[in-house]
Amino acid sequence: MNDLQSFDARSGAAHGEPLRASTPESIDAAVLAAAAAFDTWGSSTGAQRAALLEALAAALEADREALVALADTETALGTARLNGELDRTAFQLRRFAAIATRGVPFERLDDPAVAGAPPVGHPAMVLQRVPLGPVAMFAASNFPFAFSVLGGDTASALAAGCPVVVKAHPGHPLLSLRVFGLIQTVLQAQDLPVGLVSMVQGAGVEVGVALVRHPLIAAGAFTGSTRGGAALQAEANARARPIPFYGELGSINPVVALPAALQARGGELATLLAGSIVQGCGQFCTNPGLIVLIDGSEADAFVAQLATALAAQTPHAMLTSGMRRAFDAGVARFLEHGAQALVQQPGSAQAPGPQLLQVSGAQFLQQSALHDEVFGPSSLIVRAASNAEALAVLAAVGGSLTVTLWGADTESDDTRALVRGAMAIAGRVLFASVPTGVAVTAAQQHGGPWPASTAPMTTSVGDAALDRFLRPVSLQDAPGWLLARQGRPC
Amino acid sequence: MNDLQSFDARSGAAHGEPLRASTPESIDAAVLAAAAAFDTWGSSTGAQRAALLEALAAALEADREALVALADTETALGTARLNGELDRTAFQLRRFAAIATRGVPFERLDDPAVAGAPPVGHPAMVLQRVPLGPVAMFAASNFPFAFSVLGGDTASALAAGCPVVVKAHPGHPLLSLRVFGLIQTVLQAQDLPVGLVSMVQGAGVEVGVALVRHPLIAAGAFTGSTRGGAALQAEANARARPIPFYGELGSINPVVALPAALQARGGELATLLAGSIVQGCGQFCTNPGLIVLIDGSEADAFVAQLATALAAQTPHAMLTSGMRRAFDAGVARFLEHGAQALVQQPGSAQAPGPQLLQVSGAQFLQQSALHDEVFGPSSLIVRAASNAEALAVLAAVGGSLTVTLWGADTESDDTRALVRGAMAIAGRVLFASVPTGVAVTAAQQHGGPWPASTAPMTTSVGDAALDRFLRPVSLQDAPGWLLARQGRPC
Repeated sequence: MNDLQSFDARSGAAHGEPLRASTPESIDAAVLAAAAAFDTWGSSTGAQRAALLEALAAALEADREALVALADTETALGTARLNGELDRTAFQLRRFAAIATRGVPFERLDDPAVAGAPPVGHPAMVLQRVPLGPVAMFAASNFPFAFSVLGGDTASALAAGCPVVVKAHPGHPLLSLRVFGLIQTVLQAQDLPVGLVSMVQGAGVEVGVALVRHPLIAAGAFTGSTRGGAALQAEANARARPIPFYGELGSINPVVALPAALQARGGELATLLAGSIVQGCGQFCTNPGLIVLIDGSEADAFVAQLATALAAQTPHAMLTSGMRRAFDAGVARFLEHGAQALVQQPGSAQAPGPQLLQVSGAQFLQQSALHDEVFGPSSLIVRAASNAEALAVLAAVGGSLTVTLWGADTESDDTRALVRGAMAIAGRVLFASVPTGVAVTAAQQHGGPWPASTAPMTTSVGDAALDRFLRPVSLQDAPGWLLARQGRPC
Repeated sequence: MNDLQSFDARSGAAHGEPLRASTPESIDAAVLAAAAAFDTWGSSTGAQRAALLEALAAALEADREALVALADTETALGTARLNGELDRTAFQLRRFAAIATRGVPFERLDDPAVAGAPPVGHPAMVLQRVPLGPVAMFAASNFPFAFSVLGGDTASALAAGCPVVVKAHPGHPLLSLRVFGLIQTVLQAQDLPVGLVSMVQGAGVEVGVALVRHPLIAAGAFTGSTRGGAALQAEANARARPIPFYGELGSINPVVALPAALQARGGELATLLAGSIVQGCGQFCTNPGLIVLIDGSEADAFVAQLATALAAQTPHAMLTSGMRRAFDAGVARFLEHGAQALVQQPGSAQAPGPQLLQVSGAQFLQQSALHDEVFGPSSLIVRAASNAEALAVLAAVGGSLTVTLWGADTESDDTRALVRGAMAIAGRVLFASVPTGVAVTAAQQHGGPWPASTAPMTTSVGDAALDRFLRPVSLQDAPGWLLARQGRPC
C-alpha cells in the first residue's frame, strides 16, 4: 500500500507502471552505505566537494531536455518555470561548490592560550566544525528540482561533508529516479562511494519515519506541510538520541499594505500581488496568503483592483489531485469560519480558479482557523481597523517565512512598530515587490518562527544553509599535526 | 507542596524559614513584565546593555562577602571555589558587556542588489538579527553563581536584547533571592523596567513547566539533569508554538588515555585525574565519568596509581541530600550491572567517599545502564581490548560535552581515527589536562550531541552563547531609515 505511482498532473492519469516502495531492508542498507561513505566524505577536501557539486550541476544541465519534460508531465509547472528552476538548482550546486572551494566548512577561530589563572587565563583553543553525518533529506513537491533530490538541502549537506539519503517526493517519482540516476553516474565517474547519495521512496509515511528513526541518521531536513513536518520532527525528538531536524513547514506570508503605498501605486501593486498569488498555481512556500489592509478608502479601492486583477488569472493544474482537493477544503473552511468571498473563480478537476476572501481584523483575531495556510492560488484579505490591529494580526500569525511591508518608506512610530512586529514573526521582511521569489544568496534567511520552521535560527536557502550540517567543536591544546589540517576533520 | 526550604548543605539542617513557591498568577505577571520590558530592551543600544551588565558585575563584587558566605552554607562548595566562581561570573558579565559594546548583536551582512534575472540577479538584502524575546532561564544547582540567577545564560540573553525570567534552583534559594535583590537595585538605579529580569521559584516541577508553557516565553535555557531537561524540552515542543530550548543535560566526559601517555607520565596523570574526579565533589558537568584504557601493562599500572590517588581524596558534602542519595544509587546501579569496585571509600551522610569502578569494553558495550551519568566523585574505567573497541565505546557514549585524548600527539591512522571518534560525539576535545574547568572565551564550545545538549549546534559558555538568543532576519529592499539604524532592531 506504500507503493507509488507517477501521474500526469494535467490529466490526473497514471503515467507509467507502479513503483515499489523501499523496504525496511533497503532503507537500512541506504543508511549503512551513507554511514560508510561518511568515513571518507566527512574528511574530504573542499576541492573534492566542489568537484562533485560542479559535476552534478553539469549533469543536470546536460540532461535538461528530458528532465524538464518529465518534470512538466509530473508537476504541470510548465517548461519555462521548470527550465528556470533547473538553472537555479545548478546555480545552487555551483554556489555551494564555491563555498567549499573557499574553505568555509573548514573555517576556524583561533583563540591562543592566555597565561594566568582563570577566568582570564585559558588554554589554547581552536573552534572548528565537524559534519554531522548522514542526513535524511525529505524532498518537497513544489520544487521538483530546487527542493528535491538534488536541491539546496542535498547541495549544502554535501558541501558540509555529509552524505544524504533522500526520501523522494511521491509527487514526481520518475523525475526523482532520473535525477538520482544522474547522481549515481557522477559518483561512479568520480570514484566516490555510491552510498554518498542514496534515495528511498514510498507513498505513505512509513518510509520517512523509518529513515528518521534510523540510529545512524544524524540530522533531518524537510520541506513540506506543517502536519507532515511536525510528525517527522516528533519522530526525531522521540529517538533514543534526538537529532537536529530542520523542517520548513507552513507559512502564510502576510503582506501589509499601508494606505500611503496604495494611494501612490495601488493599481500597480494589485497587479503585482495578483500575479504572485497565482504564480505556480500558488504552490510556493512564500505565496502571499494574507493581505493586511488598514480600513479606509485606499483599502476599498485596492480590494476592487485586486479582485479584478485576480479574477482574470487562470492558474495551471496543481501538483497532485490530493493538493487540489486540499485547496478546495481549505477555502471551504475559511468560508465556514466567516470569510466573505470576493473572487471565487471556478476551476477544473486539476486546476483551481483563483480565490480571494475577506475578513475583518476582529474576525481574524477571533478565529484561529483563519490562520492556517491554504496551499494554492488564494489569499485572505484582513481589514484591520488600525495599525494597532494590524500589529495584533501579525502577532496572531506568529511565525512566517516572510512579511511584506508596503508603505514603510518613512520613519515614524507606526512604521517602527510595524517593522518590529514584522521582524518578530518572519525570517525575511520585504519592503518592495512580492514574497514569491527567494534569492539564493549570502543574506537570504528562509526560515522563521513556528510553523515557518522547526529551527528558526537556520535557513534552508542561501549560503548559511550549510551551517545546519556543521557542528562546532572546540579543540583544546590540540597537537601540531591536527592543527596542520587547517580545519579539515580527520 | 511546591514550597521550598533552604538547607545547610554540610549538616542537612533547615536554614531559615520555608519560602513560598511562585503562584501561577505571579509567574504570569513575571512573563508579562518581561514582555513589556522587551518592547524597549529589544531595541536598546550596545552601550545600554553594556552599562547594565557592568553594573551587575560590580554589584556582585560589592556584595561578595555576604554572597559567598550564603552560597557556602547552601552549597558546601567552599569559599575558595565560590570566590573564584563569583570572579568568573563577573568576568562573564563584563565579557558580554564588551560584546554588546562592540556591537556584535547588531552585526549585519550587506548583500547589495545584483542586476539581472534570477538566479544570478537578486534584490538588495541585508541580514541582521533580532532578539527572540523573553527567555525562561533554569538555574543549575552546581554553579550557584556562574550558571544561576546572574550566570552566563542571563548575561548572554541580556546582551542579546532579551528579558529573562529566572527559575531559581531550589538548592540555593536564599542566595538566589539575594542575587535577585541586587539585580532589582541595579535595574532601578538605571531606570530600567524591573520586568527585565524576574525570578520565580518552587521546589517541584510545576513552576518551571508553567514558565516554559507561557505563550509569551520565546526560548528556554536550562542546565541540569537529562531527565529534567528532557521533560522541559518536551514541554517546549508541545506548545502550540514550539520555541527554541537550549538544554545542557548529562555528560560523562570520556578520558581516553593511550598507552604512550601512560608510559610517559602515568603517575602525574593519575594524580591530575583523581583531582578532577573529586573536584567540587564531582559535581561538574565536565566531570570525567569514564576512563577508557587500552588493555595492557600501562593500563594496569595506571589503574593502580589512580586507585591510590583517588582513595586518598576526601570530597566535601554534596549540594543537596537528594543528590547525595542519587550518587549512591548511581554507583549501586553500576555495581548491579557488573562493574567491579576498585575504590569504595565510605562517606558521611552529606559527603560521599570517592568511587572507582571498572568494566571491560565488552561489558560496557553490552550494558547501556553503564552509559549513564553518575553525578558525583566517581569514575568508571573501561578496559578496551583495542583502539577499535575504544572507538566503539566512544560511539556508544554518543554525546558528551567533552572527550579528553591523552597520547594523540603523533599523527597515525589510530590517532586520526580516535580524533574523529572524539569529535563525532563531543563539543570539546582536549589533548592535555582534564575536562573540568571550562574557559569563558571566544573558542569555547560547551555543548554536544544528545544528551550533552538539546541544541548541539549551540554553546552555553563562551562568546557564541549570545547567538542562542538572536534570530537572523533578512531585510529585502529596506528603506534608508531602517538601514541607518545599523542593525539595531526597532
